[in-house]
Amino acid sequence: MTDGPYLRVNFLPELVAGDALAGAAVAVIDVLRATTTAIAALAAGARDVLPCLTIEDARRRAAEFPVGEAILGGERGGTAIEGFDLGNSPLEYTPHVVAGKSVVLTTTNGTKALLHCQAAAEIVLAGFVNLTAAADRLLKAANKHGGPIDVVCSGTDGAVTREDVLLAGALVDRIAGDDCPAIDDQAALARDAWRTVFGSGEDLPARLLPALVASRGGRNLSALGMQRDIEFAARVDEFQLVPRFDAASHSISPA
Amino acid sequence: MTDGPYLRVNFLPELVAGDALAGAAVAVIDVLRATTTAIAALAAGARDVLPCLTIEDARRRAAEFPVGEAILGGERGGTAIEGFDLGNSPLEYTPHVVAGKSVVLTTTNGTKALLHCQAAAEIVLAGFVNLTAAADRLLKAANKHGGPIDVVCSGTDGAVTREDVLLAGALVDRIAGDDCPAIDDQAALARDAWRTVFGSGEDLPARLLPALVASRGGRNLSALGMQRDIEFAARVDEFQLVPRFDAASHSISPA
Repeated sequence: MTDGPYLRVNFLPELVAGDALAGAAVAVIDVLRATTTAIAALAAGARDVLPCLTIEDARRRAAEFPVGEAILGGERGGTAIEGFDLGNSPLEYTPHVVAGKSVVLTTTNGTKALLHCQAAAEIVLAGFVNLTAAADRLLKAANKHGGPIDVVCSGTDGAVTREDVLLAGALVDRIAGDDCPAIDDQAALARDAWRTVFGSGEDLPARLLPALVASRGGRNLSALGMQRDIEFAARVDEFQLVPRFDAASHSISPA
Repeated sequence: MTDGPYLRVNFLPELVAGDALAGAAVAVIDVLRATTTAIAALAAGARDVLPCLTIEDARRRAAEFPVGEAILGGERGGTAIEGFDLGNSPLEYTPHVVAGKSVVLTTTNGTKALLHCQAAAEIVLAGFVNLTAAADRLLKAANKHGGPIDVVCSGTDGAVTREDVLLAGALVDRIAGDDCPAIDDQAALARDAWRTVFGSGEDLPARLLPALVASRGGRNLSALGMQRDIEFAARVDEFQLVPRFDAASHSISPA
């Protein structure tokens, strides 16, 4: 039962003390859309993604680059920021736009979650789009560091969101299977939620997309006419790439 | 989709501001064991249950009664308190012991959750042992007060517990069915968890008990040799009684 690392899920960053993450291999999740977008940007050839808490920070950090080297992206309230190059839609982060450049990204919940996890031994970004690769990487990191695995859901403004918990459950399902390694109650609940969507495993795309559309984040994006972003976020294992957040350099690059 | 009240679940009291509960019909849940015990005590004929935060408060409140009129009950760390008449096991609250008397009860998480909800229009206590009656009462209260329904899980020392979330999901399933009334993401997640246990509905007792045993609260009680309390808490619809917490008199009596 207890072979392998202990696996915990945190429905919100606020539900785990930053100190409690020391030594852990952490996956940060903001399915709609920050982590999905960061994965897409790096898969499209961006050199790195530099997460910023505020719009001012983002402008300042981008200004440190030679002209044309940095791309400014992000959102407030789900919509693009005036004067920025890109919004927070993963579809915008194409090789043509971002290859070889640094993406300075400011979003609210995802960035806050990343910063909350700074004490961890390793921090990776997960989406449905890199589900299998992220699960593999977490297990490897936990074995390397000898600590637990913590999945941290970003949520939205302090509220638990089902899209993030579903992905947490998918990671638990990949890593823990039915009974090994040991998991906490939030991990068991996340797996319950994922299995409700996953069903028999057949027709997963047909089951996952409506679940994401009905989630809090999905409803917000639908109201903004951004259904295509939800479709993108639902493409399970589109990428093999796992972004890693380096707290020292405050940058995200492929693990 | 939005006929009937809005239904929200809160995995911990800390996840909802007390003010946000104004006007709501609230169910407080501490399946293992405070709410289950309060239901059992009232069903056994106790006049009322008086929840206290501290051991000192409980002793003081009990001392206000004529000799033999009050029963002191409760726990710390799951075990009985020195000098108290009863622990926190619902099995101890028999008619012979509590009928006609006031039960002064001090537990940690359940009492804290009750106090957190004081702004609500109505506060009832739910367990699996009064599932159907509690769901009916919540719906009636919400219709009467015109506000939302909030299910508040007590958790354990700030950690989400699956036993409480499962009952929250069972309440959502009873009240909301598949799509009506409107529910939030935590309610949807709780329902996911409940449906994982509920399955086809056949053999529910055989499915619910192991789920409660495996939960955080269940593991704690098993370690203390209190498996029979878990069995008691798993008796779905054993009682029709719904306890109501009156914030003004700070007492719990049948609704």
